[in-house]
Amino acid sequence: MGLDYRVNCCPDGLVSDRRRRIKVLDCTVRDGGICNDWQFDHATVKRVFQALVESGVDYMEIGYKTKDGVFDRDAVGPWRFCDEDDLAQIVEPADIKLTTMVDLGRVDNADIPKKSDTLIDVIRIATYAHQLDDALKLLDHCLAQGFETFMNVMAVSTLAPDDVDRFLKKLARSGVHNVAIVDSFGALYPFHVRYLVHKYMNYLGKDIKVGVHFHNNQQQAFANSIAAIDEGVDFVDATLHGIGRGAGNCPLELLLFYLDNPRYDVRPVLDLVEDFADMRDDLRWGYHLPYAISGYYNIHPRTAMERMAREDRYQVREMYQSLSGRHEDREDRKTG
Amino acid sequence: MGLDYRVNCCPDGLVSDRRRRIKVLDCTVRDGGICNDWQFDHATVKRVFQALVESGVDYMEIGYKTKDGVFDRDAVGPWRFCDEDDLAQIVEPADIKLTTMVDLGRVDNADIPKKSDTLIDVIRIATYAHQLDDALKLLDHCLAQGFETFMNVMAVSTLAPDDVDRFLKKLARSGVHNVAIVDSFGALYPFHVRYLVHKYMNYLGKDIKVGVHFHNNQQQAFANSIAAIDEGVDFVDATLHGIGRGAGNCPLELLLFYLDNPRYDVRPVLDLVEDFADMRDDLRWGYHLPYAISGYYNIHPRTAMERMAREDRYQVREMYQSLSGRHEDREDRKTG
Repeated sequence: MGLDYRVNCCPDGLVSDRRRRIKVLDCTVRDGGICNDWQFDHATVKRVFQALVESGVDYMEIGYKTKDGVFDRDAVGPWRFCDEDDLAQIVEPADIKLTTMVDLGRVDNADIPKKSDTLIDVIRIATYAHQLDDALKLLDHCLAQGFETFMNVMAVSTLAPDDVDRFLKKLARSGVHNVAIVDSFGALYPFHVRYLVHKYMNYLGKDIKVGVHFHNNQQQAFANSIAAIDEGVDFVDATLHGIGRGAGNCPLELLLFYLDNPRYDVRPVLDLVEDFADMRDDLRWGYHLPYAISGYYNIHPRTAMERMAREDRYQVREMYQSLSGRHEDREDRKTG
Repeated sequence: MGLDYRVNCCPDGLVSDRRRRIKVLDCTVRDGGICNDWQFDHATVKRVFQALVESGVDYMEIGYKTKDGVFDRDAVGPWRFCDEDDLAQIVEPADIKLTTMVDLGRVDNADIPKKSDTLIDVIRIATYAHQLDDALKLLDHCLAQGFETFMNVMAVSTLAPDDVDRFLKKLARSGVHNVAIVDSFGALYPFHVRYLVHKYMNYLGKDIKVGVHFHNNQQQAFANSIAAIDEGVDFVDATLHGIGRGAGNCPLELLLFYLDNPRYDVRPVLDLVEDFADMRDDLRWGYHLPYAISGYYNIHPRTAMERMAREDRYQVREMYQSLSGRHEDREDRKTG
């Protein structure tokens, strides 16, 4: 069926080797839950669990742990809290690691159980760089409770290089197991990613794994994942059909195709993606112009989400002008 | 608003320089027309023309020239034919070049007017590699009629490297002005693109421009365009909101953001994209699982389009299994 240019591009098989060592973290319920306030019913989450297990996906991020009082339990679904009795309805013994995220400031130490008292295997801490010292205290607690612990330092695209160096130096001696490059705003292009992968790997050394979590505002989530894989990261985040906040994430099905690893079987995922495609009409993640603009201008997607919620047109020209400061006409064209 | 990693990635500004020299070819009406049998009304096409002119886009591909008898004129819109009186309702004097495509086998020499008798500036010949000798005869005729003439050799992903070398050698001495790398099936990843860009540029030399035309089956159309730009191509094809056959093309708005060239003004494009976003619900280009699978398996999108037209589910597992030959379970997982 034609050629495999990979042979020509990379005669030593390096790209292929790097693909084969990737571990996949599915965050469908956790990040996709931002689209529907975590209102997935238990049967759906159970089907996601079973499909991920059958496909051989390594980690399932099933939601957040959250302290009482931050969210109204009547308005927000169970996966914002991940109570043990909800988890018990989903999880059965299987070769997959169960992950929950905690947002710094929305969880107390008391909300982190002992590892032996929960079905959770991994805690992933979401923090901004300026809160890192607090995040490190929470990390110490999670490690002491016995968890494999990951750290997502969000919105790296908004930081100066020195700031990135600074938090990576601290993380390098923190005991964390995994640090993800997190493009919260969907602002990065693949050459940014290649630069950041080298920086993260150089600072964090061999014992700390490097992951990636990309958003699709500019249709780069999967392309950025490819760039990261080719540069040697260990973990990639993905979701079913790319469901996730705003423009969504890297689609799990595309990633599994690309990884081309017999350890994975994409078929159970394909079955489920048809259902998630139906949800897309209501939940409206994916490529939309307001997200593209907020991604390009490297701002939080909430500005775009507000526009997406409007009944009338998005008025993207106005959004673009206020962000770009561009009101003048273009320069005379210099053709030739 | 945070850092520009480009400075770090590419200290000599090479990426930025390469972006600034790109010419943009919009093929909204031509390739998008495949979604609706070229049934855009004249007012819409006029608005596209005006927006492209105001934005500074270099080339507008307004449709196909087609010989009589290939399509039913009652069933197919005017942009499949590009009769001069239709063009005259759209075009006014402006700093943009009007392009039409011709499909080899669907046009006779007699259908190519003299340049002085038409509003068309550029003829772009679409051919498969195995038809190249016939395409070169048509090229000679188009050149003799006075046109800037481009050549799209389709479905390059299906060809062995030797076959690519062979057609490039012939094109290098053909007099053609521009040759596009055409990923008809949406099968290529950025590292394939980098390999092909070097091959095309090396064979074609300095006098023949190299362009790219990518499809978005695996969400790589824009990422592949970025890769091609960074490697030094001259032209990129794009469409409003990515409209195009199957999964569609590289979105023009994302491309213009990326090019970051004051020669272009994205605002007139943004206004129009809101209208094209409304069309998407009916015409259904964009990311859909059957297209992802046909892209990954490097086959013509018609298989996926047939599935997309079904009333019931796409049955993607069956599609995947028939293409992959994979019916067995995955290998035992080797973790660790």
